[in-house]
Amino acid sequence: MKKVKIYVTLRESVLDPQGSAVMGSLHKMGYSQVEDVRIGKYLELMIADEEKNVDALVNEMCRRLLTNTVIEDYRFEIEEAVSQ
Amino acid sequence: MKKVKIYVTLRESVLDPQGSAVMGSLHKMGYSQVEDVRIGKYLELMIADEEKNVDALVNEMCRRLLTNTVIEDYRFEIEEAVSQ
Repeated sequence: MKKVKIYVTLRESVLDPQGSAVMGSLHKMGYSQVEDVRIGKYLELMIADEEKNVDALVNEMCRRLLTNTVIEDYRFEIEEAVSQ
Repeated sequence: MKKVKIYVTLRESVLDPQGSAVMGSLHKMGYSQVEDVRIGKYLELMIADEEKNVDALVNEMCRRLLTNTVIEDYRFEIEEAVSQ
């Protein structure tokens, strides 16, 4: 089994109201050292071992469903999952 | 400036309805190789250089605002941010 970790972030040029709200809260709590907050998604997928081309598969799923490539960037890592 | 990357995931024992919904969609689209999907948050914080103990600061912010430690786990990495 493969474990795929996908990081989805808003593109640099896209406003992040959720991040701004969190930064505002942190400032109100006294954390003025925080100069920027950006919020994205983190996905963990488990992929069956039969799949030979995990890299191509993940790219396809990201483009078709998991991300909005107009406003989001993504990157991912593939690991061998240790059975529990 | 320090860049802090925070990964927030639901604890293993907590149900993830959003992940289940995404997995259902992937299966309907024919991606039957996907055996599990878990969805978390990914945050990027920029911290001013004056801050000396970034590690303790981030732990405190995570516990007080950024995560719900009853149902979520978090881990983070601290990087030296390259000025752009």
